[in-house]
Amino acid sequence: MRVVAAVDSFKGSLDSRAAGQAVIAGVLEASADAEVAAVEVADGGEGTLDALLHPNEGRYVDVDAYDAVGRPIATQIGVYERAGVRRAVVECARTVGIELVTVDDTLPERGNSYGLGLQVLAARSVEADEVLVALGGSATTDGGTGLMQALGARILDENGVVIGREENPLWRFAGLDVSDMVDVATMSVTILSDVTNPLCGPRGAAAVFGPQKGARPNQVAHLDAVQRRWGEALQQAFDVDVVDEPGAGAAGGLGAALLAIGGTIQPGFDRVADEIGLPDKLSGADLVFTGEGSLDAQSAHGKVPSGVARLAREAGAIVVGVAGRVDRPLGEMSDLLDAAFGIHSEARPLSQALRADVTAAELRTTAFEVTRFLVASRHRPARSTDS
Amino acid sequence: MRVVAAVDSFKGSLDSRAAGQAVIAGVLEASADAEVAAVEVADGGEGTLDALLHPNEGRYVDVDAYDAVGRPIATQIGVYERAGVRRAVVECARTVGIELVTVDDTLPERGNSYGLGLQVLAARSVEADEVLVALGGSATTDGGTGLMQALGARILDENGVVIGREENPLWRFAGLDVSDMVDVATMSVTILSDVTNPLCGPRGAAAVFGPQKGARPNQVAHLDAVQRRWGEALQQAFDVDVVDEPGAGAAGGLGAALLAIGGTIQPGFDRVADEIGLPDKLSGADLVFTGEGSLDAQSAHGKVPSGVARLAREAGAIVVGVAGRVDRPLGEMSDLLDAAFGIHSEARPLSQALRADVTAAELRTTAFEVTRFLVASRHRPARSTDS
Repeated sequence: MRVVAAVDSFKGSLDSRAAGQAVIAGVLEASADAEVAAVEVADGGEGTLDALLHPNEGRYVDVDAYDAVGRPIATQIGVYERAGVRRAVVECARTVGIELVTVDDTLPERGNSYGLGLQVLAARSVEADEVLVALGGSATTDGGTGLMQALGARILDENGVVIGREENPLWRFAGLDVSDMVDVATMSVTILSDVTNPLCGPRGAAAVFGPQKGARPNQVAHLDAVQRRWGEALQQAFDVDVVDEPGAGAAGGLGAALLAIGGTIQPGFDRVADEIGLPDKLSGADLVFTGEGSLDAQSAHGKVPSGVARLAREAGAIVVGVAGRVDRPLGEMSDLLDAAFGIHSEARPLSQALRADVTAAELRTTAFEVTRFLVASRHRPARSTDS
Repeated sequence: MRVVAAVDSFKGSLDSRAAGQAVIAGVLEASADAEVAAVEVADGGEGTLDALLHPNEGRYVDVDAYDAVGRPIATQIGVYERAGVRRAVVECARTVGIELVTVDDTLPERGNSYGLGLQVLAARSVEADEVLVALGGSATTDGGTGLMQALGARILDENGVVIGREENPLWRFAGLDVSDMVDVATMSVTILSDVTNPLCGPRGAAAVFGPQKGARPNQVAHLDAVQRRWGEALQQAFDVDVVDEPGAGAAGGLGAALLAIGGTIQPGFDRVADEIGLPDKLSGADLVFTGEGSLDAQSAHGKVPSGVARLAREAGAIVVGVAGRVDRPLGEMSDLLDAAFGIHSEARPLSQALRADVTAAELRTTAFEVTRFLVASRHRPARSTDS
């Protein structure tokens, strides 16, 4: 029997690698001679750097950057080669990620993506054939003004004074000067994101994602209005349509800035799956485990569990979802799985459930039970009355 | 596909019938054309009366009795006919049950089984061919002195004064007078119990079960010493060996009193299974669900899940255990099942998990997922690489 674990991180508890290893330990406990593989996976959000670098034996490159509220942060980017192509990887969540800051209503006016710009500069200096930018999990709604500052652009206020990186430059944005920017034409940037929202309007970055990042309604309205002017300024400076482009609204408008400098958007999971050879790894599998901390109807859209489930189904495998929380109804996500199990062996408070050792033990146990159930069901085939 | 649910009660949350119905609802959600049955089961403890009466269309008979601390309680016994034999059912947990009283260190000196004696008298008056006495879950450690009081025996203190039912007569026991007892020779009593402990000694009623019923070590020592004298008095009065008889120590020594009046002991689950025709109901099943509130290594010994699992295995079915708590390692209980699943879809405090609606919803969901997983595994058979 061939079994593959391709589980997203259990946020706040276990990363993708540890989750996969726990599952595989349970599988082997149930079936010692199973052929097993744990595959680290990600969807363009947190964990994408690790998921791409580990199987491709890439290297981490240290970068001194800033988080979304301007505090110095020691972070990394990655470089790897695959089939003769050299790629750099930048993960937004590792600098201006929302998990790194306190979310309150000061964040919309402060959050600045300058740190991500420093990562992009570092990626530029490793001279990769392609720079993959994983946009998931940002804390900013700055339209990428901070990113552009790091690349040497000047963001000006209504008096023509240059705005610094200690605030959200979009808030007081009135003018853009790109005359002294670094040369980005040499870079081939691919934006990993599943967001198709435009830069502004009712489905724009501020309206849809602003509230999760602390924005009150009046802040949303102001940011949305300035995003439009900012998008028009980007279009004028780079001759690229970004205002209405699907995905321009990703990561608080970072999509727009990256599109402006020539980036193209690809769905995060699909590109990660290609880069790590996931279809090959799922080929011939009898049973595939996927999952994440919280499995819900949204998991069907661009997230790891749905992506893995689709590929696993194509490969003819049985697919089981495992999660710390199964938030029903799962909708389409339920149909993508052959079964979905919560991992808890008993009632316990969330604080205890989030402990890494508890999650690992429960994942292992759940995988053990699912695997032995599959083995039993195949050794005792259906009765004649069963069609 | 034929699926049977034979689940014990989820103590403090759902009774056996409701638990089975929840499971079946989930099965039908996964496989609308499945042939399903929910079978109420019990092991001689709480729920035995219902489990025996419902499928046999028996009737409940009201009995005014007392709980273990002497408070009046409106209770029932049951009567049913099966294959021409008339049987009465008495459930200890419904009068002198531990769930009905507060457990503290006053209980060992107060707990009196008089209420159970009133149930036995009621059973005698329905003129059954056999009286089944389910002994599980008692609050008393009185050696059945209270039961004997109800049957007309006098329990005497060291001064020859009759002890009343307001205390544990064993505590001050010095003499037994059976001269005015009702005639019990007409009754055929069967004790449903899986306890094989003797009346006294290190494996006796006081030593092993006393502490769970509030007894401090000095109380255990005193009760154990008096149990021996009480057992000898019973032997003398009824010419039946009860002191060292396996099972005499069941239910705080109620086993000894019932043995003295001619009772015989049978394992609770096995007899209930026979009385409800469980083997027939499991015949031809593809999938059997069993379980209980807390599934642990002890569940392998005389409890519902192990009994159902053994019969289901004999019937060639896949057997899945479901529980609010799966207390690992399960030991032999694990081997009896093809899989064991906790039912929680998320971390939650015990108080919330014990809500009947929550337990029912989670049982239903777990059964849904297990059933559809089985269906999927049978529709996608193992690959050629799978032996």
